[in-house]
Amino acid sequence: MTDTTAPLGIIGLGTMGRNLALNLADHGVPLVAWERDADLAARARAELPEATVWAADAADLARRLPSPRAVLLMVTAGAAVDAVIDGLRPHLQAGDVIIDGGNTDAADTTRRQKDLAERGIHLIGLGVSGGEEGARHGPALMAGGDPAAWDRVAPTLQAVAARATDGTPCCDRLGGGAAGHFVKTVHNGIEYAVMQALAEAYDLMRHGLSMDLDAIGGTFARWNQGPAGGYLVEIAADVVRTRDADGAPLLDKVVDRAGQKGTGRWASLAALDLGVAAPSIAEAVFARAVSAARDERQALAGTPPGRLEIAADDLESAVRATTLLSFLQGFVLIAAADARDGWSVDPVAVARVWRAGCILRAPLLDRLAEAFGGLPPGAHPLAAPALRAELAETLPGLRRTAAAALLGGYAVPALTSALSWHDGMVRARVPADFLQGLRDRFGAHTFERIDAPGSHHATWSGA
Amino acid sequence: MTDTTAPLGIIGLGTMGRNLALNLADHGVPLVAWERDADLAARARAELPEATVWAADAADLARRLPSPRAVLLMVTAGAAVDAVIDGLRPHLQAGDVIIDGGNTDAADTTRRQKDLAERGIHLIGLGVSGGEEGARHGPALMAGGDPAAWDRVAPTLQAVAARATDGTPCCDRLGGGAAGHFVKTVHNGIEYAVMQALAEAYDLMRHGLSMDLDAIGGTFARWNQGPAGGYLVEIAADVVRTRDADGAPLLDKVVDRAGQKGTGRWASLAALDLGVAAPSIAEAVFARAVSAARDERQALAGTPPGRLEIAADDLESAVRATTLLSFLQGFVLIAAADARDGWSVDPVAVARVWRAGCILRAPLLDRLAEAFGGLPPGAHPLAAPALRAELAETLPGLRRTAAAALLGGYAVPALTSALSWHDGMVRARVPADFLQGLRDRFGAHTFERIDAPGSHHATWSGA
Repeated sequence: MTDTTAPLGIIGLGTMGRNLALNLADHGVPLVAWERDADLAARARAELPEATVWAADAADLARRLPSPRAVLLMVTAGAAVDAVIDGLRPHLQAGDVIIDGGNTDAADTTRRQKDLAERGIHLIGLGVSGGEEGARHGPALMAGGDPAAWDRVAPTLQAVAARATDGTPCCDRLGGGAAGHFVKTVHNGIEYAVMQALAEAYDLMRHGLSMDLDAIGGTFARWNQGPAGGYLVEIAADVVRTRDADGAPLLDKVVDRAGQKGTGRWASLAALDLGVAAPSIAEAVFARAVSAARDERQALAGTPPGRLEIAADDLESAVRATTLLSFLQGFVLIAAADARDGWSVDPVAVARVWRAGCILRAPLLDRLAEAFGGLPPGAHPLAAPALRAELAETLPGLRRTAAAALLGGYAVPALTSALSWHDGMVRARVPADFLQGLRDRFGAHTFERIDAPGSHHATWSGA
Repeated sequence: MTDTTAPLGIIGLGTMGRNLALNLADHGVPLVAWERDADLAARARAELPEATVWAADAADLARRLPSPRAVLLMVTAGAAVDAVIDGLRPHLQAGDVIIDGGNTDAADTTRRQKDLAERGIHLIGLGVSGGEEGARHGPALMAGGDPAAWDRVAPTLQAVAARATDGTPCCDRLGGGAAGHFVKTVHNGIEYAVMQALAEAYDLMRHGLSMDLDAIGGTFARWNQGPAGGYLVEIAADVVRTRDADGAPLLDKVVDRAGQKGTGRWASLAALDLGVAAPSIAEAVFARAVSAARDERQALAGTPPGRLEIAADDLESAVRATTLLSFLQGFVLIAAADARDGWSVDPVAVARVWRAGCILRAPLLDRLAEAFGGLPPGAHPLAAPALRAELAETLPGLRRTAAAALLGGYAVPALTSALSWHDGMVRARVPADFLQGLRDRFGAHTFERIDAPGSHHATWSGA
C-alpha cells in the first residue's frame, strides 16, 4: 500500500478541481482546500467530506499544511496560475511542491519552474486527461519535474489515477521540466488527428458507401473489438446510433461546425517551432477551420460527392494506419521537444500512461509501449518491427481508400497527410534537392553537396 | 512623371540595402545614407554615386534630411529594427515617415506603428520581394500604413519597383497597419506551397514516369508557355537541366535536405492563430522538415516507389490546380487577418503587385486580379466563376495524379492538401457534426442544433 495519508493542499474547486478532490477524498487523502469563488466553494463544501479543512486564502492554506507542503493547483491555465503562485510563494519554504494540474502551455511551466527554483520550491507540471469523468473516477496523469519532489507526491496521485488492465496506475513522471504538460498537449493533438480520421471514415461510409447510421454504428462497434479499437471508436458507435426525440438520427440535427479549445493548435505550433512534421495534427486543426467556414461552404457548395467503391476491410485499415501514424507523429514531436529541452522522456512510459483514463486509451497503446521498448535509444518509432508489420498490413487499404476518396471528391486530409508523412519518411531521397536548386537559383541560398563539404552556389543556367 | 527628387534617408547597406540604394540612385533619388558596419559602409560608398550624403549616425542622418523626413530601414528584422528606431526617434518630428523594408513580422510592425504614432511619426511596413536581383533592378513592394504618409513616399518607391507587362509599377499600399508585411509573409507561404507542388511533380516525373532530366526540363519549359507558367516553373526548367562539371545532372549532387528561413512557418502560424485553413502552406513546411530528417529517412528507407501511369496532361493539371488553390488559401488568410485588424486590403491590388518582381510572378496573377475584381466584397475567392472554370478543367487531372501517387507510394502532401481543402470548402455539410458528437460525448463540450438556437448537450447513449 502506498502512503496517501499526507495532507494535500488543493486550490481551485471548479468542475475539474471538485471532481479530483472528491476522488482524492474517496482514497482517504486529507485535503486542505481553498476556492476564491464563494459559489464554487459552497458547492464543493457540500460534496466533500466533513474532515476537509477549508482555508481562507493562500497564506492560510500554507499555514495549515505540514512541511514539506504539497499544493495542487486546479485553476484555469494562464494568468490565474501566475496569480495563485504569486500569492502562495511568500508562504512556502524550500522543499515545498506545487503541482499545476491545469491545461498549461509547457513554455509557461518551464518559466515558472525556473522562477520557483530560485526559492527552492518545486513545480510539477501535471497533465490531467479524461475530462470531468476521469477526474472523478480515474484520470490519466502525466507529470514532469524534479524526481525527488515527484516521489513525494506520486503515491497520492497514483492512488486516484486510472489503472491499466494490468493494474498499473496511469500516472507517471514522464521526464523533467515541462515534460508532463508537453505530453498532454501532444496527447490532445493526436486526439484531433484520430478524431478527424474517424470523421473521414464516417463521411465515406455515410455518403460514399450509402450506409445508414445503424450500419455505421455497427461497423464502429465491430472495429472496436479488433485492432482498430479504442475509446474514441467505442463512443463513435454510440454517437452515430443516437436518436433524437423524434426518432431521427441526432447527428443530422447537429450543426457541422467543430469547436476547438486550442490544444490541437498548440501541438501544431510546437511542431512548427521545433521544425518537426506533424501534418495529421495540423490537417485536423485545419479541417475544423474549414468546418467553421460554414456560411462560405454553403455558398460554394455544388453537387455533393457520390458513390464510391471501397472495401470494408480497406476502410478499417485506413483508420488503423492513420491512427498509428498520427500517434507516431506525436511521439516524434515529443522526442524533438525532449532533445531541445533535455527532459529525458521515455516513450514507453508515455504510451503506458495513455493506456487508461484518457481520451486516447486503446489497446494500441500496449502495442506501442512494447514496440518502443525494443528500440535502441533515439531510434525513430517507424523503425520498430512490430509497427512496420502493422503498417505493412494496413497501408495498402489506406492507399486504396484515400485514392478512391480523392477521385470521388471526398476531403480526406487526415488520411492523406498520414500516408504522405509515412511515404516521405521511408524515402532515402526526397525531392528536396530540387527545392534547394530553386532556392539557390532565385535567392543564392546555397546548397550542400553529397560529395564535398561546405556550402555551394551555382548559377543553374540550364546547361 | 513622378517626383523622385525628395531626398530619402536609408539606414542599412547590407546586400539588400545596397542593391536598393543603387536602384534608387539609378532613378535619381538623392540619398542620405548611414551604415554602422565600416566594411559594409565602405563597399556601399565605393558603388554609390558621389552625390550620396553619408551620415555619421542616426541623429546626423535626421539632421541632413529636409522636413518632413522619409527614412528607409534596410536592417535585419527583429531587435536591430527596434534599436535603429530607438536611435532615430528623438531626432524625428511629427509627420516624418519611417519605412521598414525588412522581412518583419506583422505583429512587430503593428506594435511599432502604435509606439511611433504617439509622437506623430508614421511607420510604413514594406514587404520587399525579389531578392538581391529584385532589389537592384526592380522588386515587388508591398506597403501598409497611413495613406497620406504613403502618398508622400510612393513616387520614389514606385520609380524603382518592377513593372507589370502593362507598365504598372508593382508597388502599392495594400492596406493600413501591417498589411504590407503580412502580405509579404503570405507571399512566402504560397511560395513554399507552389515550390512543394513542383517538387512533387518533379519526383513523379523522375521516378514515377522514369523521365530523364532533359525531358523533365523540357516539360517544365513547355508548361511555362501555357497557363501553368510563371517564374518558378521557368527556373525549374533551368535547375533540372543544369549539369555539374563532370556532365552529370547537378541536382543529383545536391543533398536532399531543404533549408527554410522561417517565413513559410510564419504564414502557417498565422493561419493557426487566425483559425483559417492553409494546409498546403503548412504541408510544404512539414515536407521540408521531413527532408531535414535525412539520417532517419536513410535508416528507414525500403524499396523506392516504382513506375506509375500518369498522363502528362494530368500532371500539368495537378500543378495548375495545386498552385491556384495554394494562392487562394493565401488570399483567404490575408482576408482573415484583415477582418481581424481592419487594414482594408483589396485582393485585386495584392494580385497586381505580385505580377512582377517577386518569386510568385506568373500570368496567373493577371487572371486572379481579374477574377477578384468581379467578386462582391467579402466573397470567398472560390466563388469567382473564372477560377471555378479553371478548377473544373484541372481538378480531374489533380485527382488522378494524386490517386496514382498515393497508390504508388509517392508522398504528395501539397497536391492532396490542396485537393482536400477544395473538396471541403465546396461541401455544404462536412462531417464536423460527428466531431461535435464525439466532443459532447466525452467532454460535454455541447453542440449547436440546426433546428434550435443555443447550446445543447446529449448523453449520446447509442439509442
